[in-house]
Amino acid sequence: MNFSIYLPDVKSRRADNPPVLYYLSGLTCTDENALVKSDFTRFASKNGLAVVFPDTSPRDVNVKGASDSWDFGFGAGFYVDATEKDYMENFNMYSYVTKELPEIINAYFPVDGNRISITGHSMGGHGALICHLKNPGMYRSVSAFAPICNPTNCDWGKKAFSGYLGNVENGKNWDATELMRNYNGVETKILIDQGTKDKFFKDQLKTEAFLNVSQERNYPVEVRYQPNYDHSYFFISTFIQDHIEFHARYLQN
Amino acid sequence: MNFSIYLPDVKSRRADNPPVLYYLSGLTCTDENALVKSDFTRFASKNGLAVVFPDTSPRDVNVKGASDSWDFGFGAGFYVDATEKDYMENFNMYSYVTKELPEIINAYFPVDGNRISITGHSMGGHGALICHLKNPGMYRSVSAFAPICNPTNCDWGKKAFSGYLGNVENGKNWDATELMRNYNGVETKILIDQGTKDKFFKDQLKTEAFLNVSQERNYPVEVRYQPNYDHSYFFISTFIQDHIEFHARYLQN
Repeated sequence: MNFSIYLPDVKSRRADNPPVLYYLSGLTCTDENALVKSDFTRFASKNGLAVVFPDTSPRDVNVKGASDSWDFGFGAGFYVDATEKDYMENFNMYSYVTKELPEIINAYFPVDGNRISITGHSMGGHGALICHLKNPGMYRSVSAFAPICNPTNCDWGKKAFSGYLGNVENGKNWDATELMRNYNGVETKILIDQGTKDKFFKDQLKTEAFLNVSQERNYPVEVRYQPNYDHSYFFISTFIQDHIEFHARYLQN
Repeated sequence: MNFSIYLPDVKSRRADNPPVLYYLSGLTCTDENALVKSDFTRFASKNGLAVVFPDTSPRDVNVKGASDSWDFGFGAGFYVDATEKDYMENFNMYSYVTKELPEIINAYFPVDGNRISITGHSMGGHGALICHLKNPGMYRSVSAFAPICNPTNCDWGKKAFSGYLGNVENGKNWDATELMRNYNGVETKILIDQGTKDKFFKDQLKTEAFLNVSQERNYPVEVRYQPNYDHSYFFISTFIQDHIEFHARYLQN
């Protein structure tokens, strides 16, 4: 498994090790896209955060159908643990980003693994939301850029859940809107930015569904509809400062 | 010819059209690399600058030997006007970036073509320096990230000049250090950043040669040796704010 990690400059660091922000990327991405395109570095540096970028799927394994389309298989792990036989051995991105990878990061890098937060874009925004909702209190703060909020109700999610989990119904346990319905853990703050000219906004992302359920439950989710922004890294780089400063507030001490 | 242009938000613009910063890219790049990797947007926006990114060579033309290596031909126009017969029709990047492209930009975009500055990286830093030195007063300010300062004295330059111009000697008219020896035009300020752990620093870039000649002539060149930085876009993105603010000072009114 590939990943990238950013460590803030030792000289500008506090005496203690830096907290860690996990950044989950979207469909077709590797660990490198956000690393080079999101403009996160100056703000991670200024706020003294380490940032970890996992890949979006396993690579270089021989898995049936994993190379056939851009929205399933390689580059499209969807942050679930697969139960279907062709995928269950390799496609366990949920366990990877919540357990295996943090263990590696904490063991090999000078970070404070007790202070972690999570963010992501699109499929990775979905990942950030469910990693929190399935692990109340594990992350100090959660944010997302244009997340897939209700994947059992959009084509990307239906395809992924059918393939990895056997059917869409099984995906309800990996769907932020469904998980929010029954969530009763600690109310970690969630920040979401969503561009209004994002071409996936209405059909794939379903921001309103998640916001409605969150509001019914009085869960503190801040959704910011950003006028005229699209789904691109220019959208991310425009608001990355806000997200990093948001997480930094909860990650200090 | 491909190029990219960034225009600052109309609403945040002054009543007059914005000035233009030309950004010349390095070997192997297209117009897109710096666009997505240099983190220039927030500073160009804040300072109200348009930024134009030319490609580094013509593309999609049938030219002998232009696809054979990464440091000659496509992606490696070297900002000269070729005189050798295989290249003289298509490889005229100097005329393109100093004349043809500005005419297009000024005709089709809401910019103030009378206020322009120039910067670049590596081969593009060489380009920025010679475009100024061959056109005294055309640019209000000049900067470069890790420029090739004395190409008649390094392998990249020798290969390019031999191919495009017939021999290295002919390259002296396209070499910043050589041009500086005899320069007697307006002393436009030049800012150069150079990483000390840049693997091309000593053999290819020859920063000292240019600095020495400039100092002999009392020309105002500021060279900043940045400790431990390499030749990458992370180096560029770290110092892009300084360069944009440097140009903005000279481009206002």
